Formats: sequence, C-alpha cells, structure tokens
Amino acid sequence: MRREEQLFVVEGVRMFCEAPIQWIREVYVSESFLRKAEQNVPDKNAPGIRDRLKKCHYEVFADDVFKKVSDTQTPQGVLCVLAMPRYVLADCVDRWMTDRIPLLILLEDLQDPGNLGTILRAGEGAGVDGVIMTRQTVDLFNPKVIRATMGSIYRLPFFVVDDLGGTIDHLRDKGVRVYAAQLHGGTDYDEPDYTEPSAFLIGNEGNGLRRETAERASQYIRIPMAGQVESLNAAAAATILMYEAARQHRRKTLKKVK
Amino acid sequence: MRREEQLFVVEGVRMFCEAPIQWIREVYVSESFLRKAEQNVPDKNAPGIRDRLKKCHYEVFADDVFKKVSDTQTPQGVLCVLAMPRYVLADCVDRWMTDRIPLLILLEDLQDPGNLGTILRAGEGAGVDGVIMTRQTVDLFNPKVIRATMGSIYRLPFFVVDDLGGTIDHLRDKGVRVYAAQLHGGTDYDEPDYTEPSAFLIGNEGNGLRRETAERASQYIRIPMAGQVESLNAAAAATILMYEAARQHRRKTLKKVK
Repeated sequence: MRREEQLFVVEGVRMFCEAPIQWIREVYVSESFLRKAEQNVPDKNAPGIRDRLKKCHYEVFADDVFKKVSDTQTPQGVLCVLAMPRYVLADCVDRWMTDRIPLLILLEDLQDPGNLGTILRAGEGAGVDGVIMTRQTVDLFNPKVIRATMGSIYRLPFFVVDDLGGTIDHLRDKGVRVYAAQLHGGTDYDEPDYTEPSAFLIGNEGNGLRRETAERASQYIRIPMAGQVESLNAAAAATILMYEAARQHRRKTLKKVK
Repeated sequence: MRREEQLFVVEGVRMFCEAPIQWIREVYVSESFLRKAEQNVPDKNAPGIRDRLKKCHYEVFADDVFKKVSDTQTPQGVLCVLAMPRYVLADCVDRWMTDRIPLLILLEDLQDPGNLGTILRAGEGAGVDGVIMTRQTVDLFNPKVIRATMGSIYRLPFFVVDDLGGTIDHLRDKGVRVYAAQLHGGTDYDEPDYTEPSAFLIGNEGNGLRRETAERASQYIRIPMAGQVESLNAAAAATILMYEAARQHRRKTLKKVK
C-alpha cells in the first residue's frame, strides 16, 4: 500500500500546481484534461498548468479510466502521487526557539477529516509554525483531510507523536507555554499573552482532552459561550484561539512600528 | 411533502429533549429505545428522556422499521417531526434596537451544510441575535445542517430573505453597521467597534460576496492571512468575526464593572 511506501495521492489542478516539485513521484492526467492543457486555454484556477506538466513525467488515461481511479465524483483530470514529507520535531523546536516566537497547535485524537483539514488551513492563515497530533488522530493523508487543507498540507510542518504528554513536557522545557482548551475552568482565552512562545492543546470532538493530557499543560483556557451552547466544534475553537494569537502578534508589531 | 406543511424532522435523544415542546408534532421511537427509557437507565446524554416522553404522544416502531425510516447510519431510536418556527425580521430588528445592541450575521448563498450548521452553533455561542440568509443558501432544515447546529436551531432566530440588498439597506436605516468580509481591501477585522449595532456579511464558499451585495455594506473588513492561504473556510471566517465581536462586548462589560 501507498502508506508503507510513504506516498500519498492528491487530486485536482490546484493541488497539482501547488505541490512542491521535489515531492512529486507520479502524475496521471485524463485525455481531455491534457488536450485542454496543451491548448493552453486560460484558466484562472490553473495559470501554470502547462509549465508544470512540462516539468513532470506523466501518464495519460482515457477519461472513463480516469474516472474510475479518481476519488472524487467529478474529477478534474489530474492526480498525482507524492512523497510524504518528514519533519523532525526536535529540530524544528530548536530552530523556532532561536529564529522566532513559535505558535503551535497540538491535537489529541481528532476524528473528523474536515476539522483536521480546516485547522491546517486556518493555522497557516494565522501564522502557526507547526501542527502536532497524536497517532490516534484521523490520517492526515485521508483525501477528505487533504481537500479541506486547500494546499496548506504542503506548507505547514506537521508531526505525529506517540507520546503527547512527553511532547508537552519537552515544549515546556524549551520555554513554550502550553494552553489546554477546556469547556469549564481556566481563564478567558483572550487574557494570556500569546506573543510569547505558545501552543494550544485541542481535544477530541466528543470527549475533549484526556485529563492526564490537560494536566500536563501550563494553563487552562476557555472560550466563553453564550446561550445554551455546551461546546464549539473543534475546528471552530482552534480557529478562534489561533486567530487571537495572530491578532496579538499583529497588534504588538503595529505598536512597535508606531 | 414536509416542506409545504412547514414541518421538519430531527433525530436523536438530544435533539428530542432540547426541542421546544410547543414545536413538537409527532414523535417516533424504536422498541429498544422505549424499553431503555422506561427502565430509566441513567444516561448522561438524556437526563430528561422519561419525563419528556410522558409529555408527548408517540408511536413505537420495531427496531428494523425504525432503522429504515432513520436518516442516520446508527439511529439512536427517537425521531420527531417539528413545526418550523417563524420569525419576522422587522419585529425582531425593532425589538433589538430598543432592548439591546444587536449582533447579526448575514449569509449570501452558502452551500455547505456543515458550514451553515457550524455558523449557527458558533453564533449562539458568540451571542449573535439572529442569522439572516438568502433563499439560495443551503436549506436550514437539511438533516446535515440540523445535526451540525447541535441544537442552536432551536434557539437562534433565523430569517430567509429574497432581497438581501434591501435587507442590508433596512438594517443600515435602523442604525446597524453592516461589515462585508472581503479577501482584499478594507480594514483589519479587529479594528472596528462591534459594541455598536453590527452585522457581518459572509459570501458563498467559492465566489465570496457578489459585488452588488458588498457595495451595499457600510464597510469592508478583511481577516489577515499569513503564508499562501487565499481564503478561509466560510464558517471559520464567520466564527473569527463573531468571536471578535463577543470579545469586544465582554471587554467593555468588564471595564464597566471595574
């Protein structure tokens, strides 16, 4: 299987055009896709499609064959096999601590592909430096996750860890404050100073964080909820936290400029 | 069809227990569900199930029949038919303008059921007063939307409008500032003062806001994005804006107390 060879599959023009060229192993296109690409019909979604195809070796499938291979209902006509990137957490943490003020997100056993993908997309937008997740988290290379990342999977370093508690301890030792998002207790999420090295810890959709995980955190934070809302969707909660950190970073930079 | 009779269907213990009693028209339970409820087995997800069943007339289905009727793969054993609530926008706006500082969300042609449901859920959490949507928006009574609201559909007033531009003008006449979320241009989203009457205008997932809609707004705002992110998921963007407004309201109240 692909998994053992450390390969994964992405589909669509955008995912093909944005893929780091050194990750690409195999490319498959449908006949009609290739015809359109060769005619160089201007397509706002694929400005560089012809140039990119020139740089790759690709195989052509008849349209009906392509449709069978594709994971989507209305395939765009291009599919590629990529090498999974490898990031080493320890190296990244050391580099971050010297180069910048890191902002990280730690996910415990998230199960919904849309949530994981959305967190990567919003995370890149918020300027997050890396996403750390437990091995029990939904597979990052699941096609639904990849689609929901909208390309952020290519740009945001990620780390799958077996021992989340140990990772939390490691980050804290390095000077990162780890904030556990909880439904009750703790301080309002907009009170801490996230312009210092920070990490947000987000729990599973149904059960939240395990107690033993939450207890390793530096501080508990909560997102106030009005009405009768008991919890927010995990991706919504993560997005609120990451963007609060981004807001604080921006405000601090603005102040310095003034 | 249900739609013409102004009825809709919800499933599951939680949706049944939280439904406003005056909305309930029909209740169906499976045999095994009823047996469990009558034994009054303590269930943290359904503390009031026995009392609620006593207040309703219900019909019992054999488990296999129930499974066929159900929309979910693993039905919980309770399903009910509810009357759709009717809210009148003009009444609500007038009441809001005298009773409180309203916070509203306006959706143009959103298509993803998960996004719409998530926006209602996060909206209730952020203290939003109402959700206004175009008729081309995905059906609020779609089972996927209902599930994603996690009960907020019972508590948050919503309005389907044919003329979004006219609605924007009406709100502005009443003193509500309407902020159009745009990808480019405008001020950073955390600069305006949302402790005044405010509404956020969110566009379709693929195309954003129509130009003629955006032009009716009081002001353009944008959510800054780092990296190569071109846009955020519509529900993520709406959540960031609603929670920024909630944060400002909370901070203002805290200041008054001190």
